Amino acid sequence: MYAQGYYAYDSKKAGGVTRSHLRFGSEPIHKTYYINNADFISVSLDSYMFKYDLANNLKKGGTFLLNTSFDKDEIVKHMPNRLKKELADKDAKFFIIDANKIAGEIGMGRRTNTILQSAFFALNPQILPYDVAVDLMKKAAKKSYGKKGDEIVQLNYKAIDMGKDGLVEVAVDKDWSNLPVSELRTPTGDAYWDEYAARINGLEGYIMPVSSFTKHGVLDGTMQNNAAFKEKRTIAVKVPEWDPENCIQCGFCSFVCPHATIRTFALTPEEVEKAPMEFETLPLMGKPGTDLRFRVQVSPSNCVGCGLCVSECPGKKGNKALKMVDVNSQLALDPLADYLFKETEYKTDLFPKSTIKGSQFQMPYFEVPGSCPGCGETPYYRLASQLFGKDMQISNATGCSSIYCGANPSTPFVKDKDGNGTAWANSLFEDNAEFGYGMALANNLNKAKVLRTMENNLDKVAPELKEKMEAYIAAGNDRDKQRELAPEIKALVAAADYDEDVKALAEADLVDKSNWIVGGDGWAYDIGYGGVDHVLANNVNVNILVLDTEVYSNTGGQASKSTPRSSVAKFAAGGKTTAKKDLGQIAMTYGHVYVASVCMGADKNQTLKAFREAEAYDGPSLIIAYAPCAEHGIKGGLGNHQQVQRDAVECGYVDLYRYNPDNKEQPLTVDSKKEPDYSKMEAFMLKEARYAQLAKLKGKEEADKMFANAVEDAKRRRARLLAIEKEGL
Amino acid sequence: MYAQGYYAYDSKKAGGVTRSHLRFGSEPIHKTYYINNADFISVSLDSYMFKYDLANNLKKGGTFLLNTSFDKDEIVKHMPNRLKKELADKDAKFFIIDANKIAGEIGMGRRTNTILQSAFFALNPQILPYDVAVDLMKKAAKKSYGKKGDEIVQLNYKAIDMGKDGLVEVAVDKDWSNLPVSELRTPTGDAYWDEYAARINGLEGYIMPVSSFTKHGVLDGTMQNNAAFKEKRTIAVKVPEWDPENCIQCGFCSFVCPHATIRTFALTPEEVEKAPMEFETLPLMGKPGTDLRFRVQVSPSNCVGCGLCVSECPGKKGNKALKMVDVNSQLALDPLADYLFKETEYKTDLFPKSTIKGSQFQMPYFEVPGSCPGCGETPYYRLASQLFGKDMQISNATGCSSIYCGANPSTPFVKDKDGNGTAWANSLFEDNAEFGYGMALANNLNKAKVLRTMENNLDKVAPELKEKMEAYIAAGNDRDKQRELAPEIKALVAAADYDEDVKALAEADLVDKSNWIVGGDGWAYDIGYGGVDHVLANNVNVNILVLDTEVYSNTGGQASKSTPRSSVAKFAAGGKTTAKKDLGQIAMTYGHVYVASVCMGADKNQTLKAFREAEAYDGPSLIIAYAPCAEHGIKGGLGNHQQVQRDAVECGYVDLYRYNPDNKEQPLTVDSKKEPDYSKMEAFMLKEARYAQLAKLKGKEEADKMFANAVEDAKRRRARLLAIEKEGL
Repeated sequence: MYAQGYYAYDSKKAGGVTRSHLRFGSEPIHKTYYINNADFISVSLDSYMFKYDLANNLKKGGTFLLNTSFDKDEIVKHMPNRLKKELADKDAKFFIIDANKIAGEIGMGRRTNTILQSAFFALNPQILPYDVAVDLMKKAAKKSYGKKGDEIVQLNYKAIDMGKDGLVEVAVDKDWSNLPVSELRTPTGDAYWDEYAARINGLEGYIMPVSSFTKHGVLDGTMQNNAAFKEKRTIAVKVPEWDPENCIQCGFCSFVCPHATIRTFALTPEEVEKAPMEFETLPLMGKPGTDLRFRVQVSPSNCVGCGLCVSECPGKKGNKALKMVDVNSQLALDPLADYLFKETEYKTDLFPKSTIKGSQFQMPYFEVPGSCPGCGETPYYRLASQLFGKDMQISNATGCSSIYCGANPSTPFVKDKDGNGTAWANSLFEDNAEFGYGMALANNLNKAKVLRTMENNLDKVAPELKEKMEAYIAAGNDRDKQRELAPEIKALVAAADYDEDVKALAEADLVDKSNWIVGGDGWAYDIGYGGVDHVLANNVNVNILVLDTEVYSNTGGQASKSTPRSSVAKFAAGGKTTAKKDLGQIAMTYGHVYVASVCMGADKNQTLKAFREAEAYDGPSLIIAYAPCAEHGIKGGLGNHQQVQRDAVECGYVDLYRYNPDNKEQPLTVDSKKEPDYSKMEAFMLKEARYAQLAKLKGKEEADKMFANAVEDAKRRRARLLAIEKEGL
Repeated sequence: MYAQGYYAYDSKKAGGVTRSHLRFGSEPIHKTYYINNADFISVSLDSYMFKYDLANNLKKGGTFLLNTSFDKDEIVKHMPNRLKKELADKDAKFFIIDANKIAGEIGMGRRTNTILQSAFFALNPQILPYDVAVDLMKKAAKKSYGKKGDEIVQLNYKAIDMGKDGLVEVAVDKDWSNLPVSELRTPTGDAYWDEYAARINGLEGYIMPVSSFTKHGVLDGTMQNNAAFKEKRTIAVKVPEWDPENCIQCGFCSFVCPHATIRTFALTPEEVEKAPMEFETLPLMGKPGTDLRFRVQVSPSNCVGCGLCVSECPGKKGNKALKMVDVNSQLALDPLADYLFKETEYKTDLFPKSTIKGSQFQMPYFEVPGSCPGCGETPYYRLASQLFGKDMQISNATGCSSIYCGANPSTPFVKDKDGNGTAWANSLFEDNAEFGYGMALANNLNKAKVLRTMENNLDKVAPELKEKMEAYIAAGNDRDKQRELAPEIKALVAAADYDEDVKALAEADLVDKSNWIVGGDGWAYDIGYGGVDHVLANNVNVNILVLDTEVYSNTGGQASKSTPRSSVAKFAAGGKTTAKKDLGQIAMTYGHVYVASVCMGADKNQTLKAFREAEAYDGPSLIIAYAPCAEHGIKGGLGNHQQVQRDAVECGYVDLYRYNPDNKEQPLTVDSKKEPDYSKMEAFMLKEARYAQLAKLKGKEEADKMFANAVEDAKRRRARLLAIEKEGL
């Protein structure tokens, strides 16, 4: 037998739409085009039926399989007419399966691929007799998962058996052919979205004319912002539901959210009034005397369902204020979420930004990135956007972050109602630091030009303008002050007839940029390190954020110089034999570099403090942010990643510190003050597949030796930190 | 008036042959070829008359000027017939000048260009009236040297005035036309040299046929070794002469020689006997009972005359055993030098290699590089070659070292009579570390293959061979042992009929390579740093030597990250505003990297120890060697560079240390134990033009502030070193 496959996939890290076109036959197959007349179509996510035309390529009399949590009666109620009519028109057989439920029950978590594969063979005996297929699938499972232990192999066997048993046939009603069919998408009025982004997301890219691209000015690779939130991909199976009774209004849920899809709101009575539906609120705590109302809201269609907010919710007396519920029970709240997220005012001055709670009343300028559910990187990115997003200019290295930040046609970056927001660009792996450095130099040059113009013309302009210019010059780097003065200066300049150079101020950017250079460890420790070092060495005010997953995440888990000793990775197949490179201590050798090591789950306040200090420091800053990743194979999944971060610091796997050159007497502060319990480190590591595999590969004795050496590496790192702290160096 | 110039130059750092072809006229000149019918030819080095056909492009009736230390009678005696005949045939006017003597007398050291320029205009009034030319030259001198101080300007004025006054006309005898003329070069019998290298060096490259290149297999860029010594460029004006009476046989002269052109010899009576001429020797000290005779010998025609050996000679009771004398008084000793350098045996086992004296009885595998006189880099390179050159495999970054090591047609690398020697290649600036790392990995793979073959066949080979193989396996990395066993194993393998894999041992390289990666600070701190870091991070046995001149030397003095704060350089025109990057402490963060900071003049024994330890360490090693450079503008010139190195350590400008991971309890040893006298650092820096310019550029107050900050940088560096040393980290 011969087979041929084509795959079309988008670049979302989770819930990305992947289409497989598979042909089978007794002769070699050399087709050069996709299938448009399929015997069988299987769809793994039921929300797709509302977004895509799923059955238009099905053959007359073909079979259609849908993975869904609806039962055979509910599905008929919920299915859109388009799909019903198509199935009826095509005289199709229609099956459903709840693979997610089966996977959960047998202990496979969210992994449904084996179950659906088995269902595929059960419904397609013309390819292979089902018992032969089962035999082959079990052999393949043993080969693929043997290394990970017999338990995993047995699970897969069970999943294979359940694939057939879980199938339910749904009768296709002939009358569905007469149902009226509406447009797939409701136009939003935003031409970029309706004519360009939504069509690409709707899998219509192949049939779009060139004019759709030229019209929206995207031939140079630019993307418009404010698009990701509109995607509403509804890829979560479960999303959090808020229970006000147990809420202490701490903001943790929002602080840890990788996708900015759960937020805390402080609402005026008018805002509550104007909402599209009624909803529960609490009196806002901590601000006696105001009539503001507090609410936690998730955007159900945008949430990816990682559950981090629920894990981190401290709740009241042991009862959490959030729990995960079926997404279909929450989708009705989407209009409310849209209203709260997009129409109400973010009360940015209510609480100090330096508090967790206060930080979460800031608008995120980064929302709904295409990252994995429970991503360890994006909570840092989102936090930075809440603190500085209004003025951020970001150069982003290639890697996961370049994908979840910049997969055409949408970016997670946002522009607020004043037109302020984050400018972002992606450069090559090997020159991203230099790219961002160049942007910063250009910004500095513009600023110097503005100041020179003002200084040279103080005595040539009207007294009111002179006064404002003097205030501007005195404001230094204070962006809030600049933002206040800018429109006044521009208005005064425009109101009179000045020389060319003064006139230019009316068009100049009078608010400083917050310059950021962002990437992963593959960039910062390895391929782009030469540039990172060069930028750090040059005393310019830029902020470097390293999203440290200790592995090349985007390309599938190759070892980087950040990978710790004994971790198994590609190119370190027998476990890495050298210590994790100490980028932080390397940067400290310069003396003029602000350096922080942060780990959100271990100390949210320290993370917040480090971000604020780094940005405020008038020189190069480096934040190394420990970010758990799908590549780590964390037991229990990424929904636990904040707990993993706590454990990492407790056992000494990660040290928290801030090196601030402005503190001349003692620049380094080790924030994880408590001596780590190194005896727990091996157990900590063994909760991750990247370490747990080692004993199988090298034998327990050798593995234990390597783990012990990894512990020694951690001890040495901390001893050096403490010495630098003590000696004030 | 219009002028047009073509320049043809070679890549020797000193005494390189530069030919300028200048045309003047009242119309614009657009000639596309060199001049072959010149009105005037000026030659700045008299030794060229023995090597090149100097006057063949002179016009009938033209003028010929020679810069020489001979007076008008001596020159006639010394001139070769070829030149005499040509001048007579062409009815030429002939002038001489001793610009070197004039420069020395007026205090310009070795700088003769202004004097010769003035002489040029004095002899060519048809271009410009001489008084107009003098006026223009003085204006230009003021513009060029104004920044360096009025003293320098006045010196140049004096040089301009002396250019005419120093001219002496020599009568050209009509009868010279009848003199017999011999070949320019005597064939040596070495075809590569006679047919290829000597012709290129003889400026005949343009007229050589392609077959000269193909015949010697150089189309791929390879060069044969053992060539540089044959160049005998005789570019020194003065060379050292040995006075046995004051010699204590310490070996310092040879230890510091940048060109390996002065050496110490221990000679058997037979070797003394066989010499081509009689010469003085001393009884060899420190080896009572032997009849070996000691001699210090310079190769006069290869010496470049820096005088370092004289500066460093401790002598006896204040009387030095070396003094600089006119090169022409020493050229008669060339045959003796050739004999001693190339025909006698290096007595390598007389004294321990770990002593300065003993190290200088080792044959240098690096000799007569094309570096500047007094180069601070090449003494390190030469020393490494004496210790490990027999087995060195070097990857060399682009920069000065790639030029003085690899300027076609000659390289300073040598193969000994056994065919052992140094293999060298130059890679790009940006990938040299990776290039050398690849070589090392390949060597390791070859070695692993050899060991595997031996281990797998121990019981299949003859008992004598098995015994040798076992000894070889047991020898580990001991190259001396391997060298002893290799021919025995090969002979035993060849003597029997073994399987293919065993047979392959007869052709295998059974002696380990000493893997080196070499370059300057522009490479190691900047452009190639990403690769250096990557190689250090990977725990492979390679040795990285950084020849640290604190500036891009080869390209003319651009700032690198090694440039210290307050140093003036290109791209740091107002003095560098950030501290010197601390490559050593950065490398120490890894824990598994051997790191040394050395400064030969400050502590020769520490330098020697560091090189030997670095090479012996079974992992990555990094030697940062402080190397004074012509770009520093050292007061008194590079002939003082060993003293500069002493002063650098004394004032804390450089710290000496060795970080040896094998010393688990306390890896770091700060070898410059005495607390530096930082109060002397500014005065130390001001002896170099790169620092002395600063006050002129920035004002004294600002300059002093920057110098004070540079002192703070040095103090911080040392404080960190002492903390790491104390804490044993």
